[in-house]
Amino acid sequence: MAPPSATEVDAVTDTQGVTLPDPLTAPITANDAYGRRKKYQKSHWGVAAPAHSDMFKSPRQMTKPKAKRWDHRLNTEAHSRTGNSLKQAARFLSTPGIISLGGGLPSSQFFPFDSLSIKVPAPGHFSESETYESGVTLHAGKHDLATDASIFDIATAFNYGQGTGSAQLLRFVTEHTEMCHDPPYGDWNCNLSIGSTSALDMAFRMFTQRGDVILSEEYTFVTAVETAAPMGVKVVGVKMDSEGLLPSALDEILSSWDENVRGAKKPFLLYTVPSGQNPTGATQGAERRRSIYKLAQKHDLYIIEDEPYYFLQMQPYTGAHQPPAPLPTSHAEFLASLVPSLLSMDTDGRVLRLDSFSKVLSPGARVGWITASNEVVEKYRMHADVSTQSPSGPMQLILFKLLEEHWGHGGYLDWLLHVRVEYTRRRDVILAACERYLPTSIVSWEPPMAGMFHWLRVNWRLHPSAGTKSITEIEEEIFMNNIENGTLLMRGSWFYADRDAEHDTMFFRATYAAAPFDKIEEGIRRFGESLRKSFKLEESNGVGNRKV
Amino acid sequence: MAPPSATEVDAVTDTQGVTLPDPLTAPITANDAYGRRKKYQKSHWGVAAPAHSDMFKSPRQMTKPKAKRWDHRLNTEAHSRTGNSLKQAARFLSTPGIISLGGGLPSSQFFPFDSLSIKVPAPGHFSESETYESGVTLHAGKHDLATDASIFDIATAFNYGQGTGSAQLLRFVTEHTEMCHDPPYGDWNCNLSIGSTSALDMAFRMFTQRGDVILSEEYTFVTAVETAAPMGVKVVGVKMDSEGLLPSALDEILSSWDENVRGAKKPFLLYTVPSGQNPTGATQGAERRRSIYKLAQKHDLYIIEDEPYYFLQMQPYTGAHQPPAPLPTSHAEFLASLVPSLLSMDTDGRVLRLDSFSKVLSPGARVGWITASNEVVEKYRMHADVSTQSPSGPMQLILFKLLEEHWGHGGYLDWLLHVRVEYTRRRDVILAACERYLPTSIVSWEPPMAGMFHWLRVNWRLHPSAGTKSITEIEEEIFMNNIENGTLLMRGSWFYADRDAEHDTMFFRATYAAAPFDKIEEGIRRFGESLRKSFKLEESNGVGNRKV
Repeated sequence: MAPPSATEVDAVTDTQGVTLPDPLTAPITANDAYGRRKKYQKSHWGVAAPAHSDMFKSPRQMTKPKAKRWDHRLNTEAHSRTGNSLKQAARFLSTPGIISLGGGLPSSQFFPFDSLSIKVPAPGHFSESETYESGVTLHAGKHDLATDASIFDIATAFNYGQGTGSAQLLRFVTEHTEMCHDPPYGDWNCNLSIGSTSALDMAFRMFTQRGDVILSEEYTFVTAVETAAPMGVKVVGVKMDSEGLLPSALDEILSSWDENVRGAKKPFLLYTVPSGQNPTGATQGAERRRSIYKLAQKHDLYIIEDEPYYFLQMQPYTGAHQPPAPLPTSHAEFLASLVPSLLSMDTDGRVLRLDSFSKVLSPGARVGWITASNEVVEKYRMHADVSTQSPSGPMQLILFKLLEEHWGHGGYLDWLLHVRVEYTRRRDVILAACERYLPTSIVSWEPPMAGMFHWLRVNWRLHPSAGTKSITEIEEEIFMNNIENGTLLMRGSWFYADRDAEHDTMFFRATYAAAPFDKIEEGIRRFGESLRKSFKLEESNGVGNRKV
Repeated sequence: MAPPSATEVDAVTDTQGVTLPDPLTAPITANDAYGRRKKYQKSHWGVAAPAHSDMFKSPRQMTKPKAKRWDHRLNTEAHSRTGNSLKQAARFLSTPGIISLGGGLPSSQFFPFDSLSIKVPAPGHFSESETYESGVTLHAGKHDLATDASIFDIATAFNYGQGTGSAQLLRFVTEHTEMCHDPPYGDWNCNLSIGSTSALDMAFRMFTQRGDVILSEEYTFVTAVETAAPMGVKVVGVKMDSEGLLPSALDEILSSWDENVRGAKKPFLLYTVPSGQNPTGATQGAERRRSIYKLAQKHDLYIIEDEPYYFLQMQPYTGAHQPPAPLPTSHAEFLASLVPSLLSMDTDGRVLRLDSFSKVLSPGARVGWITASNEVVEKYRMHADVSTQSPSGPMQLILFKLLEEHWGHGGYLDWLLHVRVEYTRRRDVILAACERYLPTSIVSWEPPMAGMFHWLRVNWRLHPSAGTKSITEIEEEIFMNNIENGTLLMRGSWFYADRDAEHDTMFFRATYAAAPFDKIEEGIRRFGESLRKSFKLEESNGVGNRKV
């Protein structure tokens, strides 16, 4: 099947799946979101063609005020980046008739790949079985760009790229970012990443130096701590409640910071996961985010907003055996239902946002993107050019075929809504199991609103050994009892931002993202049984004590 | 078409293309190179399954002596790496009957990809047109691992991986490395990288600290310099001849190193590109490599061997209008024709070798691998786990389908021989053009034996402005004259390892890798014309003055 050309797919099928809005009130459902695409020539899409997300922003963005400068926050490494000097030769390539014996790019005749096909869901028919039965096969040829069959092909995607990532996919994520977050300053830019873990490594290498302290939630994505630690950078945790990071605790830490006592300069970098935080599942509400942003302004913090779970925000929890909350009826309503990002309230350009396709399309893709002010994105890109380079080109091609040529922005939002509905079902399964099987006298929880994780608080002071054993020993004992009882949950202490700090709360993390429904239920049942043994509670009657 | 199973493909078609050896004398042509594969169970190939290249080495490797320790060369960052602590939970996953609510891996039901196909050359029919006409379509399904159709599939490859890369592709590169280099120590390991540029960035962050000096060829891959510079690491260039780095010059620098004069500690890290070096095209012969290795032992250097062009070693140059040198007639003969790597003579385990698929399969893939002693590879892997993670999983799947299930080791060597022959033709085209069109009174060269680059020395002292202008000004003038005359070659000065050092040689770099033959010829013709203008030589008679 011949692939549709880039222009043919503008009218992508938005008529399947959820009910769609009037295009007048929601122009974002069209691929050509801002009517600016006609400008681009074939050379913009060629091998290692330079790209910049300014090319893909709506003109309105240019009328906004500019971001503040962050020279005082960037470190020596970032300040000394000058980029790849060989690219200075590239400006001569536009000389008419020039023959280049310059760049060391192999000829595509040495790529042993003639075409690539990938079978994906038709919009609105997103389940695994529907995809198997009625999926659409997308096709990329070797020289589709030369033959005008597409603006992306094997000869281009399998060759070298730029630190920005390909223009083709950068356009899609830039438009997606504008429609989801519409940052209040003008010179924001996107840049593809090879995933948020790498982007975080690069961000730390841009802002921190040995001996620095950064701030994060008290329980945090432990990889972030382990990315920072070998750089000599410690993480200090900020107390949390069910909405995540507590502004009062953040303000208190910063206002009372004593360099002599702490042995480190006052922190200026906040690493936060605002939605469906790992491991706590906490989601900061809009007001909470505004308070955090204001505090960032007060203390001149720079914020790394890590948002892999942004589109795993779920339907409101209505309780067991209650009718579900109604679905959004339009893309606009869907987007409006999401908690606004820190990026969307970032008047100063003090947010580096990390987005990822890992949780909503494929973790193995190793494709994500960052959004920040041009100054910061330029430093990132220059580092990428001499380290990670671009994400895998063939993977960019696959995502381009799916997102741009097949689904379009509207179809992608439909997919994200599908994922939301599926995660809601999974979340409801684990909550029902917890209500059914867990002894509420010793374990408590909040229904997660986003993400993959359910965070279970255990009142360890009721444990028979509470007087004689440490919290860590009791946590270990419960963990091992769980294993013995055939269920594995993660120990909360594995997620301490700061292991040296004192901790007097005990949690276990359960994920509802992966296991089949019956396994989730059985895993929680075993956890309840294991807790009763550990705490020497009466055996439950099989149904267990419900939470009231 | 159903994919062949992993066991079915052991008898991969080695009967096409070049004549193959007796399998008894060249067992490396079989996929199952060492008869060890039957050990592996399905769980070894599953989602994020831990892998280690020791699993894939022949037992003989374990009988060799172990590498030296490099604690005294590793820096603070490397020493403080402890890896990803969450993986400690993984060891409990083998508990029979356990239900895991632990790991935060999404379910493959949320990957909107049902199958992937890629059309590639049949072994021995490698040209672009043959691939188009008679290529073979390889197919990966979503759950091929569960159905025993393959040991790699979409559900696995599109999910999270490990810092090692997938076991599936790690096996292939480990076996390939053993057959090509067979390091003389036992505890060598491979680890997939996301490309050698990133691997180099990570290596510098493992060995160097701010203020350090490293050594490289006098003219070098400029990205290496620009990777190191923001880390506060400078590169000092070692004089070269047509075989690359000069051992005597290396010894002289190290023996006479004066910390007070140099303002830096004596260097211990050598970055070298032994084959088809960028930009000079120089290839170190076997004796040269042995001398360099001995000097590394004398001065306790650690070597980063960057070898993207190893399999772009070409047929011997026999001169214009001469019959070509005969091709290798077996895989064994082919491998024996290659200059031995530093890794192959590395008795101490002091070499970190960087290999890449970029120049022989696809630069956009962003897949390569490193080989070094286990101590160094472990540090690398632990860094990868908290930064780059693994190469793109779908790209690993594509390479696995091609290299393991379709071509096998023998077919891959056939492909590499095909690439060798094609590059030889290209090299011969540029050499013929140079002999025909360049004024040998002012420009000279050596036939490159490997790689993508032809390095043209210009006797700038014969330039009319040699008495009044600097070498840099004259180089710039020639470069601009070239542009005006419609041809772009890279300025040699762009490749200085150390721009502050004094340089009195002038070069231009031309690549024969990319342009069509007629463009290569015309580009060189224009360069000759441009040089004659710059140097105010007599116009040539159209045929030009031949080199004698």
